[in-house]
Amino acid sequence: MCDETNKSYLKMTDEELQSELEQLRTIYKKYQRRGLNLNMARGKPCKEQLDISMGMMDVLNSSSDLCCADGTDCRNYGVLGGIDEARELMGDMMENNPKDVLIYGNSSLSIMYDTISRSMTHGVMGSTPWIQLPEVKFLCPVPGYDRHFGITEYFGIKMIPVPMFHTGPDMDMIEDLVSSDPSIKGIWCVPKYSNPQGYSYSDETVMRFARLKPAAHDFRIFWDNAYCIHHLYEDKQDHIIEIIAECKRAGNPDMVYKFASTSKITFPGSGISAIATSPNNMEDIEEQLKHQTIGYDKVNQLRHVRFFGDIHGMVEHMKLHADILRPKFEAVEDILAEELTGKEIGYWTKPLGGYFICFKGLEGTAKKIVDQCKKAGVTLTKAGATWPYGIDPKDQYIRIAPSFPSIEDLKEAAKLLSICTRIVSIEKIMENRKNNVETVAVVEK
Amino acid sequence: MCDETNKSYLKMTDEELQSELEQLRTIYKKYQRRGLNLNMARGKPCKEQLDISMGMMDVLNSSSDLCCADGTDCRNYGVLGGIDEARELMGDMMENNPKDVLIYGNSSLSIMYDTISRSMTHGVMGSTPWIQLPEVKFLCPVPGYDRHFGITEYFGIKMIPVPMFHTGPDMDMIEDLVSSDPSIKGIWCVPKYSNPQGYSYSDETVMRFARLKPAAHDFRIFWDNAYCIHHLYEDKQDHIIEIIAECKRAGNPDMVYKFASTSKITFPGSGISAIATSPNNMEDIEEQLKHQTIGYDKVNQLRHVRFFGDIHGMVEHMKLHADILRPKFEAVEDILAEELTGKEIGYWTKPLGGYFICFKGLEGTAKKIVDQCKKAGVTLTKAGATWPYGIDPKDQYIRIAPSFPSIEDLKEAAKLLSICTRIVSIEKIMENRKNNVETVAVVEK
Repeated sequence: MCDETNKSYLKMTDEELQSELEQLRTIYKKYQRRGLNLNMARGKPCKEQLDISMGMMDVLNSSSDLCCADGTDCRNYGVLGGIDEARELMGDMMENNPKDVLIYGNSSLSIMYDTISRSMTHGVMGSTPWIQLPEVKFLCPVPGYDRHFGITEYFGIKMIPVPMFHTGPDMDMIEDLVSSDPSIKGIWCVPKYSNPQGYSYSDETVMRFARLKPAAHDFRIFWDNAYCIHHLYEDKQDHIIEIIAECKRAGNPDMVYKFASTSKITFPGSGISAIATSPNNMEDIEEQLKHQTIGYDKVNQLRHVRFFGDIHGMVEHMKLHADILRPKFEAVEDILAEELTGKEIGYWTKPLGGYFICFKGLEGTAKKIVDQCKKAGVTLTKAGATWPYGIDPKDQYIRIAPSFPSIEDLKEAAKLLSICTRIVSIEKIMENRKNNVETVAVVEK
Repeated sequence: MCDETNKSYLKMTDEELQSELEQLRTIYKKYQRRGLNLNMARGKPCKEQLDISMGMMDVLNSSSDLCCADGTDCRNYGVLGGIDEARELMGDMMENNPKDVLIYGNSSLSIMYDTISRSMTHGVMGSTPWIQLPEVKFLCPVPGYDRHFGITEYFGIKMIPVPMFHTGPDMDMIEDLVSSDPSIKGIWCVPKYSNPQGYSYSDETVMRFARLKPAAHDFRIFWDNAYCIHHLYEDKQDHIIEIIAECKRAGNPDMVYKFASTSKITFPGSGISAIATSPNNMEDIEEQLKHQTIGYDKVNQLRHVRFFGDIHGMVEHMKLHADILRPKFEAVEDILAEELTGKEIGYWTKPLGGYFICFKGLEGTAKKIVDQCKKAGVTLTKAGATWPYGIDPKDQYIRIAPSFPSIEDLKEAAKLLSICTRIVSIEKIMENRKNNVETVAVVEK
């Protein structure tokens, strides 16, 4: 299509760009006429992924004994922290002692929300309720997960963006801020296969987290280990240091709340979720939780335990997910590589797990790219969503969620995204030239 | 056993009482030696009740289509307010328009907790967050439900007891307080087969509720319709006016939150719960709820819908519960009648539905009665639990929960309760006489 494949757009003449742009607009118009209707906005499992958990529906039937190992009838009220075998299963998944694990309902997001909500009204282990403080701040590694930011924004917590690197967030900045500002009460982390970049925190990063010296004694790390066993490859996996144990070793045993769920393992919305934390935090949580509920769905806990048997069963199950997801990620990555390599108008991450690929384009292009995709029938996550308050200051990041569409559709969508990226980037470069503004190349570092 | 059955203890001589006491103590000691171990503390369904819902475990299997009527795959994320057919089923159960119903997780208690929590931090439909006010008060009809009082106490809300009559709470007092004190933000109500008395609000009571003129524009009635279809008899049922419609007719459309769940219909802890309220309140709720969750367990919603088919199926199912519960209630009532009639030391309610019988004894006896029962192996709800802060000022009320034990055990427990009541009452009467304090007879009004 273009005369010189892989030539940097930044090095093309105006004429070359104009010619390229015209060709691309023709292609874009063809896409528009095709009336695509694809959604890559959310990290939503596809039908084939849901199908592999259908055995969940058979594991309990009317002849089943619905008592758990200690004899408790799971059909009745009670057991605030979850049945023992569910705590063990989730503990194995989260790499935590079952005693340090509390099972909740169907959503780890709700646990995080409830944790912030409780801290606002009742403080943390006896501290001043956050709502009574003149200001409460959270550190937010960016790009990050929009629903995290949604919770903190809802409670009026001021969010401070912290840059993400391949190794995790900027620890120098975090150490400085956390140790000097007592109004900083927490940080949102997705430490493994991060949302949206798919980066995993390095050993050094986790160790520095565990050794933070917060000015606020009620500072907590919100460690959302959403993708802890969500690998794409069997032979290439990220491993991170277990944070609760590391904090304990570092003399900061109470500094972390860790969250996980089976939402992307069995059925999203019908799974079980858990928090792992220190005994002191757990006591604090249970003091509140006993007012909020008599107990979560134990039949569903039992269903999960019986379906997987144990953590090995769960790990095997995750390979089935990987087999479905891997080609989808690769398809997107291949098309982006084909279409964008060398053009210096963006790069994309190539994660080994999780649910997202993150694209970073030229400054001031993300919104327009997402908008153009939308107009041709492909819905991406709203540009800016990966930043606090929905504001990506340089308008560069786009989150790509390859899980839901079919591979064929994904290829179309990735192709369209590439076309839109090229169009919007050329327009931006030309606009910059007209305004005598330098265009900063965006290439993989 | 006693010389003159049905003679009032208050009219007996000291000698008669002493003789009666000695006989009763002998019987009590026999109970102690038998080593009973029965629990009547909570409104917990018995095994036979759970068994009638075992069909729930078969209604979905791996061949089932888990899409709901509008085609949504219930296995995946989404549908914040619940699937349409669950809203219809719960709407039919609650006598509300499905559009006015939001489906939550497994616990209506959690909805109530979350509702208070949200009002504390974010106010109600734009009002000042309650936590920012110098004082927030709730009216608490007494005796009432301890978990309601637990929530308001946890949030530091001042609780004001309001006496309960056969017809519902003291509406004169409620009208006075609510219209004059803007710090009164809510009232806890269990309008049908109330916990613990089993009283149902009269038409006049509901109509007066709907016509309240609260000084606080963010005053809300917390209408916990926990026992809306939980009748004990088919031919004798209480009916109450539907409060949301009545409020709408009275020009107070936004004044009520109404709660219900299937906890005592299918499996406690594994059911579905719902709130019904006005469109304005619903908008207010959803603005918060979207941060707390992506959606509740839709597979379980579908399971409930498919199990019952429709409200008729649910009503038929409730007859099976009634057949199990009715003889239990009657057994307790019969024994209390045999043992206590005429003695003027207490009366008990005879509800047509719900989960509790409420016993009211002489002033200053409830704690000791519960304590003596405990020492002979029968655990009752803690005395005082039915009052805010756990303090029953005259120490008179005991909640009896007949659902869980077998009939044989129940009879033993009711007998023991009667013996303990008689012992403690005689001791109290004799103590009063010694101190020249009049003993006020407690008889059914």
